[in-house]
Amino acid sequence: MRREVTLRDVAELAGVSSRTVSNVVNGYANVTERTRVRVERAVKELGYRPNVLARNLAQGRSGQIALVVPYLDTPYFSELLQSVIRAAKVSGYNVLIDQTDGDPEHERGFIAHGSRRLLFDGVIFSPLGLDQQALADRDPALPLVILGERTSDGTFDHVGIDDVAASRQATEHLLDLGRNRVAAIGDQPYATGEAAQRRTRGFREAHQARGLPVREDLIIGTPRFNRPDGAHAMAHLLELEEPPDAVFCYSDLVALGAIRAIVSRGLRVPEDIAVIGYDDIEDGRFSNPTVTTISPDKEMIAATAVERLLLRISSATPPPGLELRAPHKLIVRESTVGRSARPPSA
Amino acid sequence: MRREVTLRDVAELAGVSSRTVSNVVNGYANVTERTRVRVERAVKELGYRPNVLARNLAQGRSGQIALVVPYLDTPYFSELLQSVIRAAKVSGYNVLIDQTDGDPEHERGFIAHGSRRLLFDGVIFSPLGLDQQALADRDPALPLVILGERTSDGTFDHVGIDDVAASRQATEHLLDLGRNRVAAIGDQPYATGEAAQRRTRGFREAHQARGLPVREDLIIGTPRFNRPDGAHAMAHLLELEEPPDAVFCYSDLVALGAIRAIVSRGLRVPEDIAVIGYDDIEDGRFSNPTVTTISPDKEMIAATAVERLLLRISSATPPPGLELRAPHKLIVRESTVGRSARPPSA
Repeated sequence: MRREVTLRDVAELAGVSSRTVSNVVNGYANVTERTRVRVERAVKELGYRPNVLARNLAQGRSGQIALVVPYLDTPYFSELLQSVIRAAKVSGYNVLIDQTDGDPEHERGFIAHGSRRLLFDGVIFSPLGLDQQALADRDPALPLVILGERTSDGTFDHVGIDDVAASRQATEHLLDLGRNRVAAIGDQPYATGEAAQRRTRGFREAHQARGLPVREDLIIGTPRFNRPDGAHAMAHLLELEEPPDAVFCYSDLVALGAIRAIVSRGLRVPEDIAVIGYDDIEDGRFSNPTVTTISPDKEMIAATAVERLLLRISSATPPPGLELRAPHKLIVRESTVGRSARPPSA
Repeated sequence: MRREVTLRDVAELAGVSSRTVSNVVNGYANVTERTRVRVERAVKELGYRPNVLARNLAQGRSGQIALVVPYLDTPYFSELLQSVIRAAKVSGYNVLIDQTDGDPEHERGFIAHGSRRLLFDGVIFSPLGLDQQALADRDPALPLVILGERTSDGTFDHVGIDDVAASRQATEHLLDLGRNRVAAIGDQPYATGEAAQRRTRGFREAHQARGLPVREDLIIGTPRFNRPDGAHAMAHLLELEEPPDAVFCYSDLVALGAIRAIVSRGLRVPEDIAVIGYDDIEDGRFSNPTVTTISPDKEMIAATAVERLLLRISSATPPPGLELRAPHKLIVRESTVGRSARPPSA
């Protein structure tokens, strides 16, 4: 490797102090025009590159925040991170992205090891496998905002939609259509995260509110919220003696997998089975049929998360951890009400 | 902010030299068990966190590579980066991810500014707006591997599939089905990247090889390769006096948008219009109909890119830039041959 050109080399060639070079390179105003030109000429001649990391070390700041999600190939997360990147850019922050595969060890390492701290000034984190204890045991100096279904213990902010209410609304939409054998795909009763449990709770509440029984054999668990999970679960439901006439899927990907399983057996959506998803990803706006869904306000979630994180980063004493609710809405499309004579939603 | 606990604080409390603390923290073997225990107790007591960045600065290595892509919400890229992360992990490398939105300034900044260099030891880069000149003007010390449709100038490695051959194969598949009004969606004659041009070249070659004319009004340009692009272009094609009976789409997303436009007008895929895509993303394996596609070997592309980049990082003199071809294959699904009595591909 070549020896790196240092600040001192530049100072020597320009005939000024290292501090003066530093002032020029950092764009500080307290330098005469003549000196600035001289230093810049030396910088160019030597091919000097100011070392941002060294600068950050000195200032104790990196100008970067980390966004840590379980899966980057899940459209919900890749759409969300677009919004986070946009929101962070407005404040001059760069976003480092990492995915954990939901591995508790990887997740714990991210918030526990102070070793990685200077790479980023704070973390927006969507944990999956991490339990509340591991969250409590984290590096207390790390500014942290949690996305997804986790309750704040008062030491971090949590941003999300009201999943129970949204799931209840989704189920009620199916019941309003006159369906009376409504299934749910995506339950995870033993998961550490609360995403699935909250959706199942909303599903039950919708039935209870109308005095309708919940058929337990129509609540199907899945390991993840992906297309294959939906396809497998739906295949199972279709083999029941009395299959469902509607399905609440815990993600749009699950819904797309379920729809595929229904259609590939020659049945129709929504005529034979109505399907509703969750997340409002682009996929569901162009699928055949298009997917009715719960749409969380992703822009609002991202903007709120970034705003709270930057506040934590700049505060000498950490602000109290808040529970922050972003709005959601039900978007009705073909998979529950059939085709209207609309052009594609492009 | 609290004062950071330093190596020296630990050394003082443990009654050893700073170098000894450093040896323990870095896991070097030349420390007695008794000293190690003493140092570790002091580390724990003071809550000391070894500063990885400072360590990297001293070693001139970060242990991280950057993966820079235009769009992270494009399934092709999010699937590819899964493979890159896996391949890098095997060699103990962490992957920083950034997206450029195809903005030439952002792309140039990434490879030109030495300022960000110590954050990563090398870059795997999929440029979009960057022209060959900007690529040539980059920081020559930065190990670089390019993905996508760019030709190596001998100073970097380029990994990709043979796009012209793959596009020719896709078009031939449609011609083999007896279709004789084959359209192409995705042309970008003025783009700096060569992705679209190469696909159009393959499309033309397939016609020429059979002595068939290309109908120029059936080659439709699109700004990007997304679902809305496919839906818009297809809507235009359907309004032609003599619409196509088959379409070669330059990505699976374009194909999914095109299929949506066809189906929403009450036409059938493939009976009325056969559709083939490109990329083999998961979406096309669960859509209705499933999408026939060109499948690039993403695992091979990722593994080759990481392998070459690590070689560049560890080489004192840069190895010559190579053109590296990953294999691809045609995967025939419902959107060109209709439904066979198969269960869903889950």
